[in-house]
Amino acid sequence: MPTSHAFDAPGPGDLPRSACGAPPVRRLKLLVAYVGTRYAGWQLQDARKSLPTIQGELERALGRLAGRPVRVHGSGRTDAGVHAHGQVAHCDVPADLPPRPWRHALNALLPMDVRVLDVMDAPAGFDARRSAGSKTYRYRFWQETAFVPPHLVPFVWRCGPLDRDAVEAVLPMLTGTRDFASLRNVGTKVRDCTRTVFGATIGEGPACEHYPPHLPELRFDVTADGFLKQMVRNMAGLLHACGKGRLDPGAVPELLRAGDRTALPVATAPACGLCLLRVDYSGER
Amino acid sequence: MPTSHAFDAPGPGDLPRSACGAPPVRRLKLLVAYVGTRYAGWQLQDARKSLPTIQGELERALGRLAGRPVRVHGSGRTDAGVHAHGQVAHCDVPADLPPRPWRHALNALLPMDVRVLDVMDAPAGFDARRSAGSKTYRYRFWQETAFVPPHLVPFVWRCGPLDRDAVEAVLPMLTGTRDFASLRNVGTKVRDCTRTVFGATIGEGPACEHYPPHLPELRFDVTADGFLKQMVRNMAGLLHACGKGRLDPGAVPELLRAGDRTALPVATAPACGLCLLRVDYSGER
Repeated sequence: MPTSHAFDAPGPGDLPRSACGAPPVRRLKLLVAYVGTRYAGWQLQDARKSLPTIQGELERALGRLAGRPVRVHGSGRTDAGVHAHGQVAHCDVPADLPPRPWRHALNALLPMDVRVLDVMDAPAGFDARRSAGSKTYRYRFWQETAFVPPHLVPFVWRCGPLDRDAVEAVLPMLTGTRDFASLRNVGTKVRDCTRTVFGATIGEGPACEHYPPHLPELRFDVTADGFLKQMVRNMAGLLHACGKGRLDPGAVPELLRAGDRTALPVATAPACGLCLLRVDYSGER
Repeated sequence: MPTSHAFDAPGPGDLPRSACGAPPVRRLKLLVAYVGTRYAGWQLQDARKSLPTIQGELERALGRLAGRPVRVHGSGRTDAGVHAHGQVAHCDVPADLPPRPWRHALNALLPMDVRVLDVMDAPAGFDARRSAGSKTYRYRFWQETAFVPPHLVPFVWRCGPLDRDAVEAVLPMLTGTRDFASLRNVGTKVRDCTRTVFGATIGEGPACEHYPPHLPELRFDVTADGFLKQMVRNMAGLLHACGKGRLDPGAVPELLRAGDRTALPVATAPACGLCLLRVDYSGER
């Protein structure tokens, strides 16, 4: 398992000094997993402060350990109800805190559906969002409507059977460096919608000893240098529409070129099926 | 996936006729999975009717489909918070109901954490409890206290590291035909505490791509012709005590022979780690 032992014996000599002569801070890199079901997403809700968010839970726990407010910066914002296996965040804590087993201390303060997998000293200049080289999301389609193993209910979209050939025909249309304006959510103000999708694949879920003969799960994995808001859920909605025969894969390139989300006859796939698998910082993918 | 197609075309000629000249009934065999977290167990709570139970949810859904009250009989009662992958139950429904896709109809009415995997016509004379040849339970120990993948939190006991050799040393003491009075819950009035345990094994959880390097899970699987109330959770508590070095495996045979639960210095393991994997009716194990 990941450990934070290296963090228990700090080397204060090379700590960064914050601006304005403030006390030196230590930048932490956090690896975080969560079940997003009961959260209003990653980001703090300014307008509705009472809604639980992942960022809010982490800031509350870190603030208790640091003895002062701590701001947490994620690699990106996951929507309400979206899960994460490997979200990455950074934060600055006072450098003069006594050494502590951060992972253990944070998990003792966090709700059980938010878990810190690892706490590391961040490399110099590290920023969870800006330093990210790529992110990988997974969308899980469940091809049975009547039956889902109950422990999987919060993590899949019960969408019924999909034509896998039609789904796979769309995948090459989603890769490469393109303008993805057609797949952003309506109302987003982003100037440059060009993103590079390094890979988009479809695979089956694992076999399960308890539910013969197999799991009727299709997994859509997609890796890109960045994603527009709701882009993966709109990709999943597009695959779903083609898999259901409601949209001809041959019509997809033209719809993507149009750059108009409202022209795409596709519903955004529900948040529950989506999970942020990992964020890569190495430059390798 | 399991289907109920055979059930859609009934053959009313060979239906059982219930006693007292009542209308003929059809006996159904149900295969049921549930996440037990928010339930007060399998059995209807006479004293506290407002508490949700698995039996109660199934009877409500079946009653709506049958148009009259339906009593559901499980293979056994799982405790509050215990899960099931393959609980089996039977019930009688009026034989004159129109054919219907029972599985689909039941799952549409049931809460999402209770799922019917299969509905079959029961063999002649079938009784979910009396016809059962054996049952298999699994108890999941999680050997990390600080970190559990959040989606596994409801299904494991976060107990910290166990000495696997000590745990395995106890297993042979739990198999065979024995008096298990030492492992029943305090206060149970059962005359005959003799049960036959066909197998008791320890295995590791599966590797997981998201949580390197491995899952620190130990799984205790046990199959018997029947279990006393809380017997598996007391077995798990016994394994835990030995795995923690609080109890010498060499002292276990004497404690088991004593037939006195109060003499066993072991806490009952929490319900969340326990799951009823399957009930076998074939005579084969």
